[in-house]
Amino acid sequence: MISAPVPGQDPTTGPLRRGRPGYDLASVLTVAVEVFNERGYDRTSMRDLADRLGIAKSAIYHHVAGKEELLRLALDRALAGLSAAADQARVLPAPAIERLEYLIRGSVDVLEAELPYVTLLLRVRGNTEVERAALDQRRAFDRFVADLVAQAVRDGDIRPDVDAMVTARLLFGLVNSLVEWRRPARRAETGPLADALCALVFDGLRTRRGRAAD
Amino acid sequence: MISAPVPGQDPTTGPLRRGRPGYDLASVLTVAVEVFNERGYDRTSMRDLADRLGIAKSAIYHHVAGKEELLRLALDRALAGLSAAADQARVLPAPAIERLEYLIRGSVDVLEAELPYVTLLLRVRGNTEVERAALDQRRAFDRFVADLVAQAVRDGDIRPDVDAMVTARLLFGLVNSLVEWRRPARRAETGPLADALCALVFDGLRTRRGRAAD
Repeated sequence: MISAPVPGQDPTTGPLRRGRPGYDLASVLTVAVEVFNERGYDRTSMRDLADRLGIAKSAIYHHVAGKEELLRLALDRALAGLSAAADQARVLPAPAIERLEYLIRGSVDVLEAELPYVTLLLRVRGNTEVERAALDQRRAFDRFVADLVAQAVRDGDIRPDVDAMVTARLLFGLVNSLVEWRRPARRAETGPLADALCALVFDGLRTRRGRAAD
Repeated sequence: MISAPVPGQDPTTGPLRRGRPGYDLASVLTVAVEVFNERGYDRTSMRDLADRLGIAKSAIYHHVAGKEELLRLALDRALAGLSAAADQARVLPAPAIERLEYLIRGSVDVLEAELPYVTLLLRVRGNTEVERAALDQRRAFDRFVADLVAQAVRDGDIRPDVDAMVTARLLFGLVNSLVEWRRPARRAETGPLADALCALVFDGLRTRRGRAAD
């Protein structure tokens, strides 16, 4: 896990001037992800990154071998958060439906905390080895969600008239759609948003009055 | 509404050779939307479109003034379908919750029938006049959904503990997320998919057994 970005040192006053400005790897990564999300990874060159950072390309190569390494670091950061949520859900001593809800809440948290990184992950299309590895991890995550849904159906906690894989895709389509309208400024509302999403997903919008079958 | 694309005539055998191959506007549009979705609208040139079509740029200019007109036609096609669904939901003689479900089902149908066009619409970011006009229409659509949710809450049919605009965004985040994994080959399953989505949204995944409050 990469630590949070720190502000770049002023190259004119930094204690150790070694011919490159004071960007550390975390700051370079923050800016790279911003540019990847704006322009698309395929269409971003190291020259674009250097221009945005206002430093020489060589100063970036000091930190990484190239833009694919920046992509790998960025995707690893998103995937590390989601994997941690999945690992916790896996070992939680609770029924599958509760582990599923735990995983959904954890994923909303990761999405909000790492919004640019998760946005980049969701746009990956598999053109490079790094992207294909990330897609493999996303698929494994989807299978885990589908397994939780299937187990909750067997437990009698989730209605059996839905296909587990379709449900898994709808659930994470819903969670992932947050990147389209969620803005970092609203992060303080994470709890209520996760509540609203889980209320929708588990209990539905309809009131008891509106439920013909109940 | 633009009619479905027809296969291009073979320019060497077509009855009327007028110096350009047999692509009609609908076929040009189909290919343009494909390329816009692959490369991004901003990064697609008329040269790219001509290359993909295997015709001269002038043959495209025979149909349209430029790529922004192709974008407008494409977005209009997606928006026309969604507007028609909204207009029908608006006048349906039924409670708001039923009109909301009708609109969601109609939107899933439009998304499946016009998948490349809706995909393009959902990627619009507002860099041109045409894109901003499309975004305005999307926002009006979102407000209509939020109004339906608010009315259904007042009717006592939707739980009052959810914010109407958040619910509207979650609902259409869910519908729109279908473009990420839905493939045209599966269109025959539209009904069941809309059923699964509406079951999730209105009644929730949890069985009666799992509902502590019931």
